Amino acid sequence: MSDIDAILSHVDNNHGPSVDGFVRLLEFASVSSQEDGRQGIADCAAWLKSELDGIGFETRIIPTAGHPLVLAKTAYVGALPRVLLYGHYDVQPAEPFEDWTSRPFTPDIRREDGLDRIYARGASDSKGQVWSVIEALRAWKAVEGSFPFDVTVLLEGEEETGSPSLPKFIEDHRQDLACDVAFISDSDMWSRTRPAITTRLKGLVHEKVTVIAPNGDLHSGHYGNVAANPVRVLAKLLAAIHDDEGRVLIEGFYEGAGDLPQSLRDQWEALSVEEAAAGVDLRGYYGKVGEVEAMWGHPGVDFNGIVGGNTGPGERSVLPASAYARLSFRLVGSQKPDKVRMAFRNFVQARIPKGCRVEFEGEGGSTPVSIDETSPFIAATVRALDAEWPEPTLFKGTGGAIPLVGFFTDLLAVDCVVTGFIQSDDAIHAPDERYDLERLRKGTRSWVRILAELDLHFGTSAETRVS
Amino acid sequence: MSDIDAILSHVDNNHGPSVDGFVRLLEFASVSSQEDGRQGIADCAAWLKSELDGIGFETRIIPTAGHPLVLAKTAYVGALPRVLLYGHYDVQPAEPFEDWTSRPFTPDIRREDGLDRIYARGASDSKGQVWSVIEALRAWKAVEGSFPFDVTVLLEGEEETGSPSLPKFIEDHRQDLACDVAFISDSDMWSRTRPAITTRLKGLVHEKVTVIAPNGDLHSGHYGNVAANPVRVLAKLLAAIHDDEGRVLIEGFYEGAGDLPQSLRDQWEALSVEEAAAGVDLRGYYGKVGEVEAMWGHPGVDFNGIVGGNTGPGERSVLPASAYARLSFRLVGSQKPDKVRMAFRNFVQARIPKGCRVEFEGEGGSTPVSIDETSPFIAATVRALDAEWPEPTLFKGTGGAIPLVGFFTDLLAVDCVVTGFIQSDDAIHAPDERYDLERLRKGTRSWVRILAELDLHFGTSAETRVS
Repeated sequence: MSDIDAILSHVDNNHGPSVDGFVRLLEFASVSSQEDGRQGIADCAAWLKSELDGIGFETRIIPTAGHPLVLAKTAYVGALPRVLLYGHYDVQPAEPFEDWTSRPFTPDIRREDGLDRIYARGASDSKGQVWSVIEALRAWKAVEGSFPFDVTVLLEGEEETGSPSLPKFIEDHRQDLACDVAFISDSDMWSRTRPAITTRLKGLVHEKVTVIAPNGDLHSGHYGNVAANPVRVLAKLLAAIHDDEGRVLIEGFYEGAGDLPQSLRDQWEALSVEEAAAGVDLRGYYGKVGEVEAMWGHPGVDFNGIVGGNTGPGERSVLPASAYARLSFRLVGSQKPDKVRMAFRNFVQARIPKGCRVEFEGEGGSTPVSIDETSPFIAATVRALDAEWPEPTLFKGTGGAIPLVGFFTDLLAVDCVVTGFIQSDDAIHAPDERYDLERLRKGTRSWVRILAELDLHFGTSAETRVS
Repeated sequence: MSDIDAILSHVDNNHGPSVDGFVRLLEFASVSSQEDGRQGIADCAAWLKSELDGIGFETRIIPTAGHPLVLAKTAYVGALPRVLLYGHYDVQPAEPFEDWTSRPFTPDIRREDGLDRIYARGASDSKGQVWSVIEALRAWKAVEGSFPFDVTVLLEGEEETGSPSLPKFIEDHRQDLACDVAFISDSDMWSRTRPAITTRLKGLVHEKVTVIAPNGDLHSGHYGNVAANPVRVLAKLLAAIHDDEGRVLIEGFYEGAGDLPQSLRDQWEALSVEEAAAGVDLRGYYGKVGEVEAMWGHPGVDFNGIVGGNTGPGERSVLPASAYARLSFRLVGSQKPDKVRMAFRNFVQARIPKGCRVEFEGEGGSTPVSIDETSPFIAATVRALDAEWPEPTLFKGTGGAIPLVGFFTDLLAVDCVVTGFIQSDDAIHAPDERYDLERLRKGTRSWVRILAELDLHFGTSAETRVS
């Protein structure tokens, strides 16, 4: 049996060095969606390998068509359960830099509101999550000398671009990844005091739509009342997507969205959406507000960007030749990315005036995932989290797509447990992204407790104890 | 009496040197709306001064709070009518450069469709117009040795930014500008064979509107179904401005727009809007198409630019913190810029959801101008143009604001004649702006004929001849 109290004490006593390592991890500009993030990705992967090797893993950096994965395995133990721990070390772009208080890849620790906050791109999403896992393993190894079962750590460098290389990697490395349970460390708590396991994950489709006039740029004074204006066409198009209550009017969009289990709806009904989106001002939303279910369980369409015509600082009398918007679709239930994309394209085509053209850009996407809340691995995780945090663990949903959960579910046919310690006011994907060092410590302790629960209730040595 | 045939022959015989001078004029990057256009403006003004001095004018470069004006006057003659000739030497920005076939400030002459076309920013709007005036004066002086009446040439460097310094300049230089008729050389022909005098000029109001969410950038997956999206708010707002027939729904917008004289409506009714917008594909317009009256005589609202959220090359799941649009309003009749601006701002304020903020940027604007089609100076110009071109002169309207016409009308209380030789396929304000050398020549000849008509019918020496 592992000495859980000794391991937890080790975590607490080594908080300083743990923070130092975290700062180092945050200094890598591992932006996966930008060409000049390539070096930061490579350096970050190499550094993570050295850290994992240092703990005693056999670690490989595995190249892909995109960015490499870091795959670390314990020396073969042969005991059950086989555990896979997943995280991602790539980050979102940090632009616009001028909106950051400190530089995004120069971590800055500030004492605020009784917390030691660390500001950096990736602090919360997801390097803070990755680092808690690594530090838990380090503490376990330091105290126990070895792991009681086979542990595989998989760190991805393409999560923020939708994990394009992961499916092929999983197929090529089924043997390496074979496991009884996969933990995905990249999700939110309910609150600073209440942990959560995410069991409902929305699917995601990105799409760019460009409206093109039959002419080049025109003088808007001369042709304003008679020639097509792509900005006007695009605005009309986007405005037609939602009704006044926020319901999506794209024909066929809701096909397969289905309904949630009543037990989950009841649990969510009791929650406050203001708390679910703590730190976010929800005023100004077009549509029905006040439903956690809408946030976690309903599909939707978002406009992520729009560009057309004069984008410069001065006035310019132009009818632009084209204008485009970037949209994303969040799916639930059994909605299919390809069907949703086609429904949108048909919706647009039916509304483009003759003479204008439309171009679409986008492919693939991720399917929604629902995880059975009654799985025994979920129950073990609930026990571990309940022991660490003041309030009982909540099952939640998320609109932030984690496509890899779908890949693990579909390709490895394994139980997934999605948990993590992100807060809604961590400003992930935004300027001034942050985390706090107390959550780093308690996150690390949580992973120690989860490993101990697995050892206690599923480990080979525990076989006589479980029914 | 002037020897008009000799002067016209001189124009024809000196076409080569005239083209050389035109090329030199087009090389100045005299972009008035950009800070780095300042040097091009200064160099262009200095060069124009030297050209006008060379013809025998007394020329001054007159600084303003913005860009300088070039003011050239003949040595005092004292004979009537006193004639003011106006043009502008500043140009629109040339961005995006990559959309030009040749470089915008390296004029390129190409033989196309039986024409020698010259490609450069400002070729048509308005350096081609300015150069025809200067070359007509040069030819007149070369043949006749002097002008029969006082001629003032005024070349502005801020037309493309709405002539902000012109009102003060006019007030400060009433004596210098005193005249009986002002010719504005900056407008369109009806067709390559039919000249036109523009008597209906729309007013112009520019406005920038920014919608600001109560939060910074948010993760659209997490908050998409519950938090405000400024792109969505802005799209709804813009889509609400026009009805399905293109009519503007802003309360109070049409106040003062009035009706056109029936004679003008009848003249315009006989015209084809496809010909009025020759070279422009009118398909794709939301609203009623097929009316020259809508193009020349109706007010309107245009969307010149829109920007929000992710404007980069990659996908990004963001609910943007803000989004903005640039709009322009074209006015007719007695519509007032300030009232239209306020009507728009009220329209927006009434539609912004609680929690979102809106910011407006924009001031001033130009009032619409209507010129009496029965003025004797208009009649003289019609005779001159009818003599030069194959088809009879048309009265037309324009949505391209020329605020200075309003300034001359209001501040100098003088008859204005607005004519010029721009074609609708000259791509003004757009990449690959162009002019053709035959229009440069016939434009120059037209100005010679106009000066001759003025001499013949209004000149002091002609006093006994006119009733």
